[in-house]
Amino acid sequence: MKINTNPVKGTIDYLPADMEIRQNTINSILSTFKKYGFLQVKTPILESLDILTSGDSGDNQKLMFKTIKRGDKLNLDKPSLTEADIAEEGLRYDLTVPLARLYAGNKDKLILPFKAIQIDESFRAEKPQRGRNRQFTQCDIDIWGDSSVYAEIQLLISAINAYKNIGITDVVIKISDRRILNSLMNYFNIEANQQNRVCVSLDKLDKIGAQKVVEEIATNLGGHMLDNAAELVNAIVEIKDRGLLELKKYNIESALVENLDTIIKMCKKFTNADVLFDITVIRGQSYYTGTVFECYTQMGEFKRAIGGGGRYDNMLEKFLNVSVPAVGYSIGLDPVVMLLKESNNLPNSNKIALVYPKTASIEEVFEAQQTLNNKGYDVCIFAEPKNYKSFCDKLIFCNFFALVKLENIDKIISL
Amino acid sequence: MKINTNPVKGTIDYLPADMEIRQNTINSILSTFKKYGFLQVKTPILESLDILTSGDSGDNQKLMFKTIKRGDKLNLDKPSLTEADIAEEGLRYDLTVPLARLYAGNKDKLILPFKAIQIDESFRAEKPQRGRNRQFTQCDIDIWGDSSVYAEIQLLISAINAYKNIGITDVVIKISDRRILNSLMNYFNIEANQQNRVCVSLDKLDKIGAQKVVEEIATNLGGHMLDNAAELVNAIVEIKDRGLLELKKYNIESALVENLDTIIKMCKKFTNADVLFDITVIRGQSYYTGTVFECYTQMGEFKRAIGGGGRYDNMLEKFLNVSVPAVGYSIGLDPVVMLLKESNNLPNSNKIALVYPKTASIEEVFEAQQTLNNKGYDVCIFAEPKNYKSFCDKLIFCNFFALVKLENIDKIISL
Repeated sequence: MKINTNPVKGTIDYLPADMEIRQNTINSILSTFKKYGFLQVKTPILESLDILTSGDSGDNQKLMFKTIKRGDKLNLDKPSLTEADIAEEGLRYDLTVPLARLYAGNKDKLILPFKAIQIDESFRAEKPQRGRNRQFTQCDIDIWGDSSVYAEIQLLISAINAYKNIGITDVVIKISDRRILNSLMNYFNIEANQQNRVCVSLDKLDKIGAQKVVEEIATNLGGHMLDNAAELVNAIVEIKDRGLLELKKYNIESALVENLDTIIKMCKKFTNADVLFDITVIRGQSYYTGTVFECYTQMGEFKRAIGGGGRYDNMLEKFLNVSVPAVGYSIGLDPVVMLLKESNNLPNSNKIALVYPKTASIEEVFEAQQTLNNKGYDVCIFAEPKNYKSFCDKLIFCNFFALVKLENIDKIISL
Repeated sequence: MKINTNPVKGTIDYLPADMEIRQNTINSILSTFKKYGFLQVKTPILESLDILTSGDSGDNQKLMFKTIKRGDKLNLDKPSLTEADIAEEGLRYDLTVPLARLYAGNKDKLILPFKAIQIDESFRAEKPQRGRNRQFTQCDIDIWGDSSVYAEIQLLISAINAYKNIGITDVVIKISDRRILNSLMNYFNIEANQQNRVCVSLDKLDKIGAQKVVEEIATNLGGHMLDNAAELVNAIVEIKDRGLLELKKYNIESALVENLDTIIKMCKKFTNADVLFDITVIRGQSYYTGTVFECYTQMGEFKRAIGGGGRYDNMLEKFLNVSVPAVGYSIGLDPVVMLLKESNNLPNSNKIALVYPKTASIEEVFEAQQTLNNKGYDVCIFAEPKNYKSFCDKLIFCNFFALVKLENIDKIISL
C-alpha cells in the first residue's frame, strides 16, 4: 500500500535545519521575555467548548477543530443529530482564552500584575497560505492587572529586544489607541454601531488609497455620509502625516494622547527602535479596547506585520466577574522563522560527523566521540559511507559544518 | 455565569515554578541528545487517520482523539452514520508513527543512519492517573538505518547522560532482547501464537511472584502446560539471578547474547551507570522486535519506569516498502518533571522583583531595570504593594529569589 506521506493540509514538518532556526528563535525570545520579568506558563491544547466559546473571537470559533465524543457518550443513532451532540472538546485557537482560564483558576496564588509568557501552539482550520499554518506557534506576553502605561512600555521593550536578539534589528512599531479612532469617528458623526464597519474600510487605506476608502464608507453608510467619510479620511491622512499633535484639532481626550506620547518616548529611549504613532493601526475590533500596536520589518519579502497586540480590558471579566486591565503582545513564530530562513540566518553549527571504518573497535569510536565532545562539538558517528559526495551533501543539508575521520580526529575537514 | 476553570479532564496547567523545572529539563535533555549527534525534527499534532491507523499500536488507536469534519464534509443526515463518516483527522498518540511518515517523505534528503530527536506532545484518552496525562510530552531519540549495536550503545549513552544532566544520577538500565525470551519459550515448547499472552503473565513476576505467574500461564494455556510453565518461570528466575551466562543452558543464539554483553559493557564504560541484563523486561509486544530496555531510579516515590525503548525493525516497512532497522528511546517528560519537583529540585533563580513607589518617574524605573538586567538578573517591576507579606509569599511561589526597592537597588533583599 502506498501511504500519503505529506503532513495534513495546512501543517508542516520541520526538518533538522528548520528546527535549529526554530529552536534558537524560541530560546532567544524566551530568555528575552524572562529578562524583563515575565513568567512562563502553559495550558493544554484541548479546552472545553464552554471555555472556547466564552470569548469574543467569533471568527476564530468558526475555525475551531473539535474532537469527537468517545465511547458511550457518542450516540450516532440520536434523531436530528447536531454537531453539539458529537463534539466533546476543542483545540484552542489562541493562547489568551486558556490563559484567562488558568489565571481565574489560580488567582489566589499568582501575583498581580501577572506577567505571563506562553510559547505554544494553537489551531485554526484556515485556508492555508504562505507563513500561515493550521497549527501555528505564538510567542505571547501578557500583563494583567496594570492599567498604567508601564504595562505597554514593558511589553514593547521586551518585544523589540526579542526581535533584536533573534536578528531582526530594523523593526518599526506602529502604535495607536482604539479610543482615538473612535473619538475621531464620533467627531465626524459616524454612529457607534457603524464604527466597526468603517474600521474595516479604513484598514485598507494603504492598499486601495484614500479615494476608494471614502467611496466604500459612503456606499456602506449611505450617500448622505459622503462628506463625513471624505472629511474623516482626510483627517486620518493628515494625522498620519503630522503625528500626535494633529489630534488636538479633533477634541481627542488629552490623557490618551499623553499616554501614547509617553509610551513612544520611553520605548525609543530604552530600545533605540523606530516607534511611531499610526492612527491606522486597527486590529481585531471586537477584542481590543485601548492601545493597539503592530510591528513591521523591511527584512525579507514578507509584507505582513510580524507581531502585534494591544489592550483587551474586557476579556477577563467573563472569567472573573470583575474587570481586570489586560494588555498583550504576540510574536508569530512561523512568519518570523520563515523570515530568518529566507535571509539565510542559519545558526552557527558546532555539529561534526565522526566517520569510522568498518574495522574500528566500538570502544575507540565512542572514545573518539567523547574526545570531540570534550572539545565542545556535537558529534554524530557514522560508519564510512560508500558515496562521500552524497554523504557530505546530506550533512550540509542538516547543518553539519565539518567531518572528522577516526584515523585522525585532530583533522577537522570543513564541509 | 460561573465558568469551570479547571483544565479538561486528564490535562494540566503548568504554573510558573512548574514551568521552570519543565523548561530546564527540556533544555538539558535536548542539549544532551544534540551532543551525541541527534538532530531535532518536528511533526504536526494532527495526522491523517490513514497514517495513525497504519501501525501496530492497536491499544493506542483505541485511545485516539479524532477531530470532526468541517463545513460541507460533515453530513449528519446520512443514514446509518458511523464514526468514520464524521471523523476527519486524529491527534497523534505517539511520536514514532509521525516520524516514520516524515522520514518516508524526505528520505532522499535525510542522512542515513537518521538520528532523530523529538520533544513534543501526544494525546491519549487514557484514564488519568498520577504522572500520566491525556496530553503528555515525550523526549524521544530514534536511530534508523543502523542494525548494529552502535545504535543501542549511542541511544543508551545519550539517555543515561540526559538523566544525569537533569539531576537523576542513580539510574539503572535494564536491558534484554525479545528474541531471547522467545527462544526460551520455544525451548519450553510454548507455541509462537501463545507467547505474547505468556509475556503478559511474565511481566507480573515482580508484582505477584513466581507461583502465581506459573498458575496464570497454566490456566491460560491449559493444565497440560503446568510443568512447562513451572520450568519456564524457574529458568527465568535463575537467569535473573545469574545473568547472561546462564542463557548458555537454553540454546539461545550466541550472537544475541554477545550483542547484549557488548551493549552492557560499553554503556557501563562510557557512563558509569548501572546497566544490567534483565530477561523480564518485556514492553510492547506487538511493537518491539529485538533489544528492549527500561530505566529505573530510586529517587522519589515514583515506582514506574522513567523511560525505555527498544528495536522495532518492522515499523518503517509500512511506509517505505523496505525494511529499515530502527531503535528508539523515550523519556516521559511528565513523570521525570514530577520526580524532580517532588525532590524539590527547583532551578536556581536569578529573578528579582523591582518595587517602585507611586511617586517614581517612569524613566528611572526602567533605568533601574536595565541596571539590574546588566548585572545578570531577570527583573520584574512592581508598583509598591499594599501587603508586603502576601506579595512576598506570591513571589516565592513563582520562584523569585529576592526583591529590590527602587530607592536602593544595590540592596538585594532575599525572600
